[in-house]
Amino acid sequence: MNRAALAHRLTLHVLTDREWSRGRDTVTVARAALEGGATVIQLRDKLASTRELIEQGQALRELTRAYNALLIVNDRVDVAVAVDADGAHVGQDDMPAPLARQILGPQRILGVSAGTLDEALGAIKDGADYLGVGPIFATRGKLDAGPAIGAKLISTLAARFPTPLVAIGGLTATNAPEIIRAGAAGIAVITAVVAADDITAATRELLTTIQAAKQSPQAHP
Amino acid sequence: MNRAALAHRLTLHVLTDREWSRGRDTVTVARAALEGGATVIQLRDKLASTRELIEQGQALRELTRAYNALLIVNDRVDVAVAVDADGAHVGQDDMPAPLARQILGPQRILGVSAGTLDEALGAIKDGADYLGVGPIFATRGKLDAGPAIGAKLISTLAARFPTPLVAIGGLTATNAPEIIRAGAAGIAVITAVVAADDITAATRELLTTIQAAKQSPQAHP
Ligand code: NI
Repeated sequence: MNRAALAHRLTLHVLTDREWSRGRDTVTVARAALEGGATVIQLRDKLASTRELIEQGQALRELTRAYNALLIVNDRVDVAVAVDADGAHVGQDDMPAPLARQILGPQRILGVSAGTLDEALGAIKDGADYLGVGPIFATRGKLDAGPAIGAKLISTLAARFPTPLVAIGGLTATNAPEIIRAGAAGIAVITAVVAADDITAATRELLTTIQAAKQSPQAHP
Repeated sequence: MNRAALAHRLTLHVLTDREWSRGRDTVTVARAALEGGATVIQLRDKLASTRELIEQGQALRELTRAYNALLIVNDRVDVAVAVDADGAHVGQDDMPAPLARQILGPQRILGVSAGTLDEALGAIKDGADYLGVGPIFATRGKLDAGPAIGAKLISTLAARFPTPLVAIGGLTATNAPEIIRAGAAGIAVITAVVAADDITAATRELLTTIQAAKQSPQAHP
């Protein structure tokens, strides 16, 4: 996939999170998000056994194929390969990107988290296909996230590098447009979708807002 | 490695366990066990981040090479590949063996846990290089282990299959000989070593006992 195609497919990234899903299971949540237009499902479940992750991943693999969405696995590169996901996402506490790339192979998508310019430069040098940049705003979904960094790192990186940027952390339909206009290819959400009363409607509203921002004249090309 | 060579190298398997190590770090515990003659170190840490596992695995990789011992990673096939371990061990809550094999490749060692004859038959069919059979006796090291099965499954499997068997669960220098004589290629221990006052002495006593049992006339060939 070339960068423009990947950037397009990264528009709206929904991370699963069993703790914030109000008792709804991961597959149910993902299906509702896909129905609302999520372009990426990222499987993330720090409580599950490997066996459970594989089972969830296999179910999400079928579902994402049916909706022509991407499946990315958080942290667990082995699970990504085992369920034939489109890629894996690693944070600074996960496997170093060069080792993850070795296991994923050259074709699968490798996303890397960056909360500072230094981390972003390292991830780009390590061959990340996209960067997960954040936390942009204060967030309740990832309690171990660093300090909020705002839109500044997005605009700095977008001006200097072609690597697609996915903004994460406290994003909503209200604040997503400024981040897209700062140069993000897409946004990633957890609670804004998985904790919503109506997951499909919440996803659709986010997607519509992002698409409108991408088409506004100030948008980064 | 052929089966006889592998069986020999599986003689004394020490699983790391941070919770039972009385404040001593994993590398310190492993070095002391290797000094006492452990032939396998199995990295197992359900609390560590992937990054920490990689760091521990890299340190254990150097150490096990220096002592000509095997390094096996529990559950995390990705970590096994990333640190160039000799293999991985998967339980019934971990990745299914055929998927693990796909990521490990044909050369690395794949160990699979079996607590029943059915699980053992499945693991052999899936191409396990060795079976971890247990829990043999009641154990405090793995609180999620199934009911104790005694030596019977070891002797049944040893009589029917050439796959090396590593007995696990409640094993000590006192009860290890009968399990070796029942046909186990080796034994695996957690607390008997990692919780010992003198890790090196405890390991050496186990090794000596196992080696004596292997040479006794009743031993499985
Ligand atoms: Ni020897």
